[in-house]
Amino acid sequence: MSGHVRSLAGSARAAQPAVAALTAERRRRLIEGMARSIEAGQARVLAANAEDVARGEAAGLSPAMLDRLRLDASRLAAIADALRELAAQPDPVGRVTRREVRPNGLVIERQRVPLGLIAMIYESRPNVTADAAALCLKAGNAVLLRGGSEARASNAAIAACLHAALREEGVPEAAVSLLEDPAREHVLELLQLSDLIDLAIPRGGEGLIRFVAEHARVPVIKHYKGVCHLYVDAAADLALARDLVVDGKASRPGVCNALETLLVHADAAPAFLPPAIDALIERGVEVRGCERTRALCPQVAAADEGDYAAEFLDLILAVRVVDDIGAALAHIGRYGSDHTEVIATADPAAAEAFVRGTRSAAVMVNASSRFNDGGELGLGAEIGISTTRLHAYGPMGAESLTIERFVVRGEGQVRHPQSRTPDLGPSAS
Amino acid sequence: MSGHVRSLAGSARAAQPAVAALTAERRRRLIEGMARSIEAGQARVLAANAEDVARGEAAGLSPAMLDRLRLDASRLAAIADALRELAAQPDPVGRVTRREVRPNGLVIERQRVPLGLIAMIYESRPNVTADAAALCLKAGNAVLLRGGSEARASNAAIAACLHAALREEGVPEAAVSLLEDPAREHVLELLQLSDLIDLAIPRGGEGLIRFVAEHARVPVIKHYKGVCHLYVDAAADLALARDLVVDGKASRPGVCNALETLLVHADAAPAFLPPAIDALIERGVEVRGCERTRALCPQVAAADEGDYAAEFLDLILAVRVVDDIGAALAHIGRYGSDHTEVIATADPAAAEAFVRGTRSAAVMVNASSRFNDGGELGLGAEIGISTTRLHAYGPMGAESLTIERFVVRGEGQVRHPQSRTPDLGPSAS
Repeated sequence: MSGHVRSLAGSARAAQPAVAALTAERRRRLIEGMARSIEAGQARVLAANAEDVARGEAAGLSPAMLDRLRLDASRLAAIADALRELAAQPDPVGRVTRREVRPNGLVIERQRVPLGLIAMIYESRPNVTADAAALCLKAGNAVLLRGGSEARASNAAIAACLHAALREEGVPEAAVSLLEDPAREHVLELLQLSDLIDLAIPRGGEGLIRFVAEHARVPVIKHYKGVCHLYVDAAADLALARDLVVDGKASRPGVCNALETLLVHADAAPAFLPPAIDALIERGVEVRGCERTRALCPQVAAADEGDYAAEFLDLILAVRVVDDIGAALAHIGRYGSDHTEVIATADPAAAEAFVRGTRSAAVMVNASSRFNDGGELGLGAEIGISTTRLHAYGPMGAESLTIERFVVRGEGQVRHPQSRTPDLGPSAS
Repeated sequence: MSGHVRSLAGSARAAQPAVAALTAERRRRLIEGMARSIEAGQARVLAANAEDVARGEAAGLSPAMLDRLRLDASRLAAIADALRELAAQPDPVGRVTRREVRPNGLVIERQRVPLGLIAMIYESRPNVTADAAALCLKAGNAVLLRGGSEARASNAAIAACLHAALREEGVPEAAVSLLEDPAREHVLELLQLSDLIDLAIPRGGEGLIRFVAEHARVPVIKHYKGVCHLYVDAAADLALARDLVVDGKASRPGVCNALETLLVHADAAPAFLPPAIDALIERGVEVRGCERTRALCPQVAAADEGDYAAEFLDLILAVRVVDDIGAALAHIGRYGSDHTEVIATADPAAAEAFVRGTRSAAVMVNASSRFNDGGELGLGAEIGISTTRLHAYGPMGAESLTIERFVVRGEGQVRHPQSRTPDLGPSAS
């Protein structure tokens, strides 16, 4: 098998220049072709998925896992739609982002180029197979996909559709390579291939991400948990703040940009907390609070240290009353995960202090944490939300799968004038 | 010692927010203070350096290594000048690089924030202690410095000067922390501290860089060798091309942006090579060429495979005649190090094909490879030239020591309208 993983990655790497060489128009057509190919292959993909689901049921997967695994006609249509949207987005490859003329006449451009070969290591959702592949191709990269074993047949069927679209555009199929046997030892091997793989992106549970981060010799951009905070300032509009906590916690509790902890300035707490907690409880949220919270809202259970560190991904919210914005920032510094922090305040100075005082990938002033999402922030599709403070921080769209390099145009400029040799006889030009 | 390295990194990390919190004006003053402090400490630094040099001589260091190690009044003045230039540059921290208003009214900004704690791992040149520390601080970061054992006393004396300047601005000294015992096992330990260190930058010989890359659990931006190529196209201005090869090879052969290989289109070779090789030989360059080169210039020695892969860092140049631009690009793809490639051509189509066909950090059209340098490309100071296609690619200035995050400003926007609870009684605001 050793030879197999390396040779798979080698073929994918060798196919990458063909993706980069496509015009923007042809990359658009390629991704639209992938959407069509998935629609045309619907019967085959759904049959493969039914196999995976049956095997998952027999293996006793949880209902939540089975739900993530399951495909149907409408979910497949959503995948195809997402690809079409991505196809229509601006192409990042070759884009010149800055241009400067130096005093010596050199024209310095920064130009976006693909990263190369991206390894995507993910778990149960088979839609990632199509989404991630298309995003990598959009940015001129090749991709090596390793999905979860529970979605093996589904991933292979989707990959077959993608290959048909690649063939149609004359791009080697290896530009989208699927590691068919997803055993961990093959992932381990893949993570050592620093001469072939430019970036690994793990997406899934914390266990998978830690496994990748701990064993990789290739660069990794991690997408860890979101322990997101809302701080309700003394100067907050309390109705607005209440909307933000309800939206942040209850609109979709199982995602990484959901709120996990509410921090409330002591001056705002008496007027804010009772109606806010009522609104949360009405929506089925279990609230766990500090002593000061419980003094105002006796129906609230006691929070412990673990609750403040937790990514509940569930209808549970930790609450703490704090003395001031400094205490709120200290709490976030201690328990936060660099994902998303929100302040509700009508005081511009408090807003600026909060923005300056947090180092998270996204900081929101008077807006829901749930807006930390590639689509909502204007990136189009996203391959994940980076909590690594390197290369990309926050939602990663196609642009984040490229890198800026330097293109320099001159007219014969040299660093040392003595390098000129006009005396060496007539030039042939 | 285990406790020591971790606690050193922990203190540096804890000091970082104080650097980030400085205004741009105070960061400027801090770096100017560092320049003054090095000037004031000249006697102490030179005495420490004399100790290092004496120890190095006794240990039999090569003259080149001793030269890199040695400081004198003029080299110290150059260090102070470089710090003053850096101080005067624009401050990258908090800079808003993009701003977009979404259809729902949210204002999305991208804002540059510091990376956090940067570990700089370098070899003999003691000037790096001051340069790297100042660049990291300029971008709002703390820095953990590990210099070479041969420069131990010099590095400690320079760090003491930097600490005096930090004290003067009320910033904890730990913001610039020096690992006083540079033994490799301590570097190893440092490279595991992924909870404290955001980025490691190795700078020095290939052995050091590979050691860091192979053992790091923290992110690494590598600065490997530069096997830089000049391709002389059939449509080149041959006098211009001759200037570029002489400047690229002979103006300073020991640096990473020096040329190592010359590729010449077969149609240009007969007119170009004989005078160009004469000019090189006149400057003391040893030329090693392919058979076609030697047929035109019999005085040239035969090149072997190893010569095309070599970073000579010396007055040696490998030469190959190629059939066309495709063959030149294939040669670069096989032997290149993603550093700098140059084309000499008067044909815009050939220039564009060359730019598109190379994936190196810098590609030059009719300009010397020696311009791949932070100062020459307009970045001001540089901490190195990245050949890692992630985060930064090419020369890294202060801006490359920051990361863009998202700042979102709203007026109470929520993802789900049902999150609004106007019915819950009068708001207190």
